[in-house]
Amino acid sequence: MCRWMGYRGEPIVPRVLLYEPERSLIAQSVRHGPDLLEPNGDGTGLGWYSRRRTPAIFHSDSPAWGDENFRELADEICSPMFLAHVRAGTGTPVQKTNCHPFRYQKWLFVHNGYIDGFDLLRRDLLMAVRPDLFANIKGSTDSEVMFHLALTFGLEEDPVGGLERMAGFVESAGAAAGVAEPLQMTVGLADGETLFAARYASGPVVNTLYMSESVDAIRMLYPEHERLRRIPAHARAVLSEPLSELPGVWREIPPSTALVITDTPHQRPFRPQQPG
Amino acid sequence: MCRWMGYRGEPIVPRVLLYEPERSLIAQSVRHGPDLLEPNGDGTGLGWYSRRRTPAIFHSDSPAWGDENFRELADEICSPMFLAHVRAGTGTPVQKTNCHPFRYQKWLFVHNGYIDGFDLLRRDLLMAVRPDLFANIKGSTDSEVMFHLALTFGLEEDPVGGLERMAGFVESAGAAAGVAEPLQMTVGLADGETLFAARYASGPVVNTLYMSESVDAIRMLYPEHERLRRIPAHARAVLSEPLSELPGVWREIPPSTALVITDTPHQRPFRPQQPG
Amino acid sequence: MCRWMGYRGEPIVPRVLLYEPERSLIAQSVRHGPDLLEPNGDGTGLGWYSRRRTPAIFHSDSPAWGDENFRELADEICSPMFLAHVRAGTGTPVQKTNCHPFRYQKWLFVHNGYIDGFDLLRRDLLMAVRPDLFANIKGSTDSEVMFHLALTFGLEEDPVGGLERMAGFVESAGAAAGVAEPLQMTVGLADGETLFAARYASGPVVNTLYMSESVDAIRMLYPEHERLRRIPAHARAVLSEPLSELPGVWREIPPSTALVITDTPHQRPFRPQQPG
Amino acid sequence: MCRWMGYRGEPIVPRVLLYEPERSLIAQSVRHGPDLLEPNGDGTGLGWYSRRRTPAIFHSDSPAWGDENFRELADEICSPMFLAHVRAGTGTPVQKTNCHPFRYQKWLFVHNGYIDGFDLLRRDLLMAVRPDLFANIKGSTDSEVMFHLALTFGLEEDPVGGLERMAGFVESAGAAAGVAEPLQMTVGLADGETLFAARYASGPVVNTLYMSESVDAIRMLYPEHERLRRIPAHARAVLSEPLSELPGVWREIPPSTALVITDTPHQRPFRPQQPG
Repeated sequence: MCRWMGYRGEPIVPRVLLYEPERSLIAQSVRHGPDLLEPNGDGTGLGWYSRRRTPAIFHSDSPAWGDENFRELADEICSPMFLAHVRAGTGTPVQKTNCHPFRYQKWLFVHNGYIDGFDLLRRDLLMAVRPDLFANIKGSTDSEVMFHLALTFGLEEDPVGGLERMAGFVESAGAAAGVAEPLQMTVGLADGETLFAARYASGPVVNTLYMSESVDAIRMLYPEHERLRRIPAHARAVLSEPLSELPGVWREIPPSTALVITDTPHQRPFRPQQPG
Repeated sequence: MCRWMGYRGEPIVPRVLLYEPERSLIAQSVRHGPDLLEPNGDGTGLGWYSRRRTPAIFHSDSPAWGDENFRELADEICSPMFLAHVRAGTGTPVQKTNCHPFRYQKWLFVHNGYIDGFDLLRRDLLMAVRPDLFANIKGSTDSEVMFHLALTFGLEEDPVGGLERMAGFVESAGAAAGVAEPLQMTVGLADGETLFAARYASGPVVNTLYMSESVDAIRMLYPEHERLRRIPAHARAVLSEPLSELPGVWREIPPSTALVITDTPHQRPFRPQQPG
Repeated sequence: MCRWMGYRGEPIVPRVLLYEPERSLIAQSVRHGPDLLEPNGDGTGLGWYSRRRTPAIFHSDSPAWGDENFRELADEICSPMFLAHVRAGTGTPVQKTNCHPFRYQKWLFVHNGYIDGFDLLRRDLLMAVRPDLFANIKGSTDSEVMFHLALTFGLEEDPVGGLERMAGFVESAGAAAGVAEPLQMTVGLADGETLFAARYASGPVVNTLYMSESVDAIRMLYPEHERLRRIPAHARAVLSEPLSELPGVWREIPPSTALVITDTPHQRPFRPQQPG
Repeated sequence: MCRWMGYRGEPIVPRVLLYEPERSLIAQSVRHGPDLLEPNGDGTGLGWYSRRRTPAIFHSDSPAWGDENFRELADEICSPMFLAHVRAGTGTPVQKTNCHPFRYQKWLFVHNGYIDGFDLLRRDLLMAVRPDLFANIKGSTDSEVMFHLALTFGLEEDPVGGLERMAGFVESAGAAAGVAEPLQMTVGLADGETLFAARYASGPVVNTLYMSESVDAIRMLYPEHERLRRIPAHARAVLSEPLSELPGVWREIPPSTALVITDTPHQRPFRPQQPG
């Protein structure tokens, strides 16, 4: 089913979120919660903004829990914004080009979920991708196609709107093909300055999405907590599943909601739109 | 923790045991039972006897559940004897040379378990391996060292005795280093004609081992069961965890027991010995 | 640039052709001739007909020269027809889904060459693939698209005709996009009974293709040659580059030629056609 | 045969040396000079000093020329000291634990060459490694054993002396086993402040080693050369094979020589010693 996380704030060493917490992303790669059923061992990825405007990418087709390169980078990098992802494939091959984050220029994209009936819809969805973007599609996942459809529908100028038009297009294509509830998603998106996220599904069951509360609020709740004291002032994390069970640290984001995470994060509705 | 299985009997296509049952080896790679906790996604291996006297080997450092080559071979091979293994590493790297089965001439060896304190003991255990066998050690696992110690202590002439002397040596080395309960194991061993297995641990908790009942007994219990009717007459499987929950199909092997599986399988005690 | 070979005849162990000759396929993976310039180390593949009607496949994203699984299979398999391939990528990623042979039901396909301007043409070529075949496209190579276009244009009923119509379509697409000489190819194709090959390029430089002479002719030339005596009576090999420099063993196939290899192989012209 | 390079100086982006020159390390992975014969496609590695005292490591078992992660890191990292290596194996498996650089605390080590007769000598050499260092040996190469022998013989306090005593020990062990010329090596070594190198072989043929001339000398020779103007003031590179054919840029280091590269590099003899 995948698990992902995004960070925005003062530069930190990713290990702090990826390895150290009780339910770290590495722990989530072994089994994801809350029912602790399946592993997310079909690939690992990290995208981060550091030296250059264009984010750097690391992809591995190995499970995250055993990937030494991932561990090294998590310990060496110091970055103000990154997206990390552990994959559970939904039918497409395990290979580096099917790992998230996907990248287009300054943008990074991760996804947890699927397009139901993707076998039927794949051809039509691919054909709707803008020709100049088509060459950037390297793998065979539904997630990568979703990203390129959102780019086609104006993500660069209007990120949440682009995602909404992508969702609307996927749902229309699904309806035309007799797929009742085609879209299941939480997505993370970054451009180096702002972190975006959205939680939406065509049906009643929606993959989970959480955001950390403000650092001030967390410190007020847990004044003695050593690790929480180290979190920088404006830091925010957004992710599929909480890193710990401490009450009050993680805010569940409702379905059909998008997040725009700047120094003052805000929520807004997420409603699939018809592309113009 | 690993999971493995061995087969002996009329030639079958391994898929029948590796993929088709409810709790197939592939299902066990996703989560192993009975508590369905951890994946066994640190490597995959298959060794089989077919065209040649020396068994053939396939190893992958990818999880079994996604390995297309493993699926292809499981469907293409037709073999009267094979050992398959899905790995959960206990601290040594994920790489093909750390996958089971290990091979020495006509012998194949798989292991589920560990040597506690292997970091401390590794050097001494390696040095006890007979020099001409040393070059056959390609990886860094405790399992591979156990195999080569058993070969050093006469496995080729006396398979169970060689394993018992290996166990005794490991326990002595552990005692000398202050490791209280060094050995946890079920092992599978094959030479192309006979399938061997053993279940033993230094302490009270012992990894599980099961053998299939005779085909006649299974058919009597389940006269209408379609899949069970297809099992060849003298077929036996031995494995870490039952492939299904059908009562009466799988016999649990007690701790401190070895199996010698010919057309008339028998059990015997397994007692660590001091090497002469 | 890739190198491939195909075999048809009495069952042999592939090692005989893949590993043993002076310029074996493994040697060709290290450096391909005749100018011994580049390695073909971007992937390895083997497809073979044995137990089932559908051929089995092995793919590795590692160079052939170091792949232990490939060596094992080459020694264990005994098959009357197989295609093997060592890849030099032309811009698409190194991953198992980009390895040859590609498979569709009973068919296997290998390619040495490229579609020039594939970045520009990829979208249009993909869209010309018959929708029911589209789901079988797993990777991102031009080779895989060529195979699926040939299937779209009737390869199953008329193999050489399907390839000719694919070539014609690619050249038309190229012309429309301003690509002067889009197609460079030798291809190998098998269905379990017949081995097909073709050598064609849009321009004057054409990748090489060779077929072995009849076994009788070879034995007449080299009555004392030990290895050549072991070749079965109707055996034929077709490949990119000769396995040895023995005069008279390898016949160079002219450009714009197709081969149909049955017990009585014949050559015929290969001319790109316009698909109906 | 391997190829490696080391850099010391003002922080640079490794791509400048690894990818951009005419005979970059990537070009050397495709074919190494001067006879342009074999690829170095059995693994890739990079170790660099940046954020922490302990160097970070990246290893891949894929050829460098196609490794996207290596390309990304080469473009993202900015480091004052790094060692990079492209491997041609000499009989041990292709796996990440057999990639260079090897690391021990603040030290990085790369090697081009081999220990002749390593199969015979491996056991004795391993046993001479100090027990507390033994656990740091993760792979099966002669190179990794050489590093740990040098550490055993005092490399941390006296780097060149430790290497000399390792060489003496290897030669003694070889002599005792009847191996005439056991050691072939250039080695690179770093501790975060100083870069060391040595060129030595037991016999008359010695793998090559070069060091860049001072930046002042290079700029005087080539005042108009754009890329050479960008090289920082105290920068030095040491490597197996020159990155370009520009006369006067690369100084060949004689056999039996060690380099100590600080702001004022100096050469000294390298003579195998008997360990105390």
